[in-house]
Amino acid sequence: MKAGTEEGGKEQGGVRLVARRPGLGTHGEAVILLRTDSAVVRAEGLGARPRVAVAAHGRQIHATVMGFDHPMLGPDDVILSDDAADRLGVTDGEPVTLSHPAPLPSLSHLRRRLHGLRLGGDAFRAMVQDLVAHRWLDTDAAAFIAACAAFPLDFDEMVALTGAMVEAGERLTWPVQRVFDKHGAGGLPGNRTTPIVVAICAANGLVMPKTSSRAITSPAGTADTMEVLTNVQLSTEDMRRVVEAEGACFAWGGAVALSPADDILIRTERALEIDTMGQLVASILSKKLAAGSTDVLVEIPVGPTAKLREAAAAEALSAVLVDVGAALGIRVKTCLTDGRQPVGRGIGPALEARDVLAVLRATPEAPPDLRARALRLAARLLETAGAAKDGAGALLAEETLASGRAYARFERICRAQGAFLEPGRAPLQAPVRALRSGTVTAIDNRRLASLARLAGAPETKEAGLDLHVRLGDRVACGEPLLTVHAETSGELGYALSYAQSSADIITVTP
Amino acid sequence: MKAGTEEGGKEQGGVRLVARRPGLGTHGEAVILLRTDSAVVRAEGLGARPRVAVAAHGRQIHATVMGFDHPMLGPDDVILSDDAADRLGVTDGEPVTLSHPAPLPSLSHLRRRLHGLRLGGDAFRAMVQDLVAHRWLDTDAAAFIAACAAFPLDFDEMVALTGAMVEAGERLTWPVQRVFDKHGAGGLPGNRTTPIVVAICAANGLVMPKTSSRAITSPAGTADTMEVLTNVQLSTEDMRRVVEAEGACFAWGGAVALSPADDILIRTERALEIDTMGQLVASILSKKLAAGSTDVLVEIPVGPTAKLREAAAAEALSAVLVDVGAALGIRVKTCLTDGRQPVGRGIGPALEARDVLAVLRATPEAPPDLRARALRLAARLLETAGAAKDGAGALLAEETLASGRAYARFERICRAQGAFLEPGRAPLQAPVRALRSGTVTAIDNRRLASLARLAGAPETKEAGLDLHVRLGDRVACGEPLLTVHAETSGELGYALSYAQSSADIITVTP
Repeated sequence: MKAGTEEGGKEQGGVRLVARRPGLGTHGEAVILLRTDSAVVRAEGLGARPRVAVAAHGRQIHATVMGFDHPMLGPDDVILSDDAADRLGVTDGEPVTLSHPAPLPSLSHLRRRLHGLRLGGDAFRAMVQDLVAHRWLDTDAAAFIAACAAFPLDFDEMVALTGAMVEAGERLTWPVQRVFDKHGAGGLPGNRTTPIVVAICAANGLVMPKTSSRAITSPAGTADTMEVLTNVQLSTEDMRRVVEAEGACFAWGGAVALSPADDILIRTERALEIDTMGQLVASILSKKLAAGSTDVLVEIPVGPTAKLREAAAAEALSAVLVDVGAALGIRVKTCLTDGRQPVGRGIGPALEARDVLAVLRATPEAPPDLRARALRLAARLLETAGAAKDGAGALLAEETLASGRAYARFERICRAQGAFLEPGRAPLQAPVRALRSGTVTAIDNRRLASLARLAGAPETKEAGLDLHVRLGDRVACGEPLLTVHAETSGELGYALSYAQSSADIITVTP
Repeated sequence: MKAGTEEGGKEQGGVRLVARRPGLGTHGEAVILLRTDSAVVRAEGLGARPRVAVAAHGRQIHATVMGFDHPMLGPDDVILSDDAADRLGVTDGEPVTLSHPAPLPSLSHLRRRLHGLRLGGDAFRAMVQDLVAHRWLDTDAAAFIAACAAFPLDFDEMVALTGAMVEAGERLTWPVQRVFDKHGAGGLPGNRTTPIVVAICAANGLVMPKTSSRAITSPAGTADTMEVLTNVQLSTEDMRRVVEAEGACFAWGGAVALSPADDILIRTERALEIDTMGQLVASILSKKLAAGSTDVLVEIPVGPTAKLREAAAAEALSAVLVDVGAALGIRVKTCLTDGRQPVGRGIGPALEARDVLAVLRATPEAPPDLRARALRLAARLLETAGAAKDGAGALLAEETLASGRAYARFERICRAQGAFLEPGRAPLQAPVRALRSGTVTAIDNRRLASLARLAGAPETKEAGLDLHVRLGDRVACGEPLLTVHAETSGELGYALSYAQSSADIITVTP
């Protein structure tokens, strides 16, 4: 039977309240604050992370409820986190309706997966759709990541998840046969080869509409670094115009909502500090497929504190990327590189942008390792595209950079995007010094990245750090190992206290 | 090396802010709100559920950070959720220090467990300690529950987890040889046999210092129901005094902090809707061990919408409870019962208390099923204790109830606890009617529980519902199947809208 009610008719749809947006920022999670004497809190209780359906403008999300007994919150008010409000498109003062949510079928899929069952395309579609629509709570996403750690995604599941992630967002198309792309599997601070590689390849006729992400847990993403030099908030139309004219662009992927599920899953993985190969493959390929790429070169740095710690794991990832890519119609090539230490000198948007410009301008300060890595990757792409014969890519890449053709193209792309700016410098600097003399025998990429973030990167573009030493260098006691750049003394202090309390960021062996 | 810093000395320990407590209620999770332009938010970012260490009065917790850009929050202020503030013992206006937390070893254990490795006692102790100290975030707890679902706890792990949970809280001791206890594995609304069983057993000389929990996700826990009739906020001293005088008491376990980890884990399980046997065993036994019980009778209702759906699973649980109990030095007996439908008529604290009193007072309205179940359980305990010969327990229990000795003891216990009150009645009622004529062929315990909660139980003691039908009853179209009791029209409407939108709460087959 369907239970009938006396007054169900008028009551159906639940409780109407007035949305308030005082500026509650949760970055992704949908949270609402209600007075604890409100009907919804009294009904749902606050015991077990209550999930409430919030509806407005014909849209519905699920949100976590917290109690908030402050005079600013009236009896008919509900505070929505900005993400929740944006999802619903409600502004302060607009009505929203709260109700007890119907059970989500996608959570049944999640529970089955958690108990070891394998899922098909429909199940992954349902889960990703609810994830992207913010009907999943952080704890649901955490359980999903946990399930993928406990029972690694098999090949079919990786294909299904990647496909579902592509479907859940925008998808770009390009009026050319082959669209080239480049990706770094990450975990290596300062490894900002993309702008250089794209400039070299575009100067040789390759089409590279580059969409990059902002940093989620690293000190800088390519989009953060490029934003120091130009405008990266490009609409699809902007991208088409720039690529039409220059063959390439540097766009922030978020502006065109490519694989939005990826950002949520990455956040969850980082919060739990769990990396799984299946997630990594789906993350990389879903973004590239959504960007409309046909040929992708993936750099995989290998090192004790890089994302991939051993060559064997990197080779396994490489093989899976190629196979899953093939199943989804994208050609993937991979390139294993040295991931034992950061690349270049700067870590942080502006400091990395400075290194990138130095390489493109061939100035004496150009970090040789950044230059060499960019040339190697560019050579592979040039050969893949047939712009150079096999084996001749390195020479062409070198010539393109040395002749200034790469820099010229880079500048034209930036100007076509609306600006070409010079990196700024943070007002405050403080060195972190060696406490003994000896040889640099290890550099912790992860802790360096944390240190740069604590200094304010990437939110503060000029914040981060400059690395003064490389593996094998001799240092004297008291010599600066790195310099922290920050905008405020609060951030500088917060970062320095971490540097002091965190041993072995840079290991010096007598 | 340990990195040295220019001003690390004064900066170490991070950023000092002023605590604000506007009444942010999260029930367990530690959350702090900071202005997004604050040094800590700029440093940590809000991307991946940042975890920040908050210290005051020599204590430290970890909290999730959310951004809050409202004038009520000054540049040097931080809003603490009440749970976070209580943990630290800070009041509004007191200073707290925020810093980037050191990595938690317990999270490494969690990740190892998530990848299928088995853990020992030290690892479980570390995890439970951090969980109870609120150094784990909700997402960490969710991952732990997920790990226990993916790779069920083995025998040794159940013993280790249960032991760790007992150690993480208070532990009661009693000056007698045998301390009896009774537990219902739950999932069955209205199954409020405990007050009756305790009264019958105490009247026959058994020592039963009953500690009960409040409802977390059910419409009423025994503590909620007993609170309608007496004071359950007993200190350890109160409990000793009452038990000394009457042989038993009805105390809220939360007041004496028995196995606090259990409440957090139960909340997480409910939020994810994941039940695992290992968790259930650790939950039940950790509470009983902490309460100082030596002999426990566990009722396990079996039914399609009870916690245990099949007899086989119930028997497996029964065997594990006995074995794990033995390993930890507690004698466990179990009793499988019919869990196909609720017990008694009322669902909700006051409505269940009314049924309990009716049985104790032997009034005509006494629900026969509640009476029969209570007698059966009491008989087992009386025989276990040797108060009755094997097979003679039922007769003694029956006589104790019929003679009024059980009621007299119950009243004395309540008066010794400070009060003996009659249940109240909610001002608003509305029936849910059958939409067709036929036979009641199924009753959904879980949805009935949800309905009672949405009506306001257990926060509103008088709220809940009265069930008018039982399996096999004939009903005519339009006949009331149940009556919803609520205090406000908002709650009533919220509940009725759920009743209307949720099919098959009560199945009527033509």
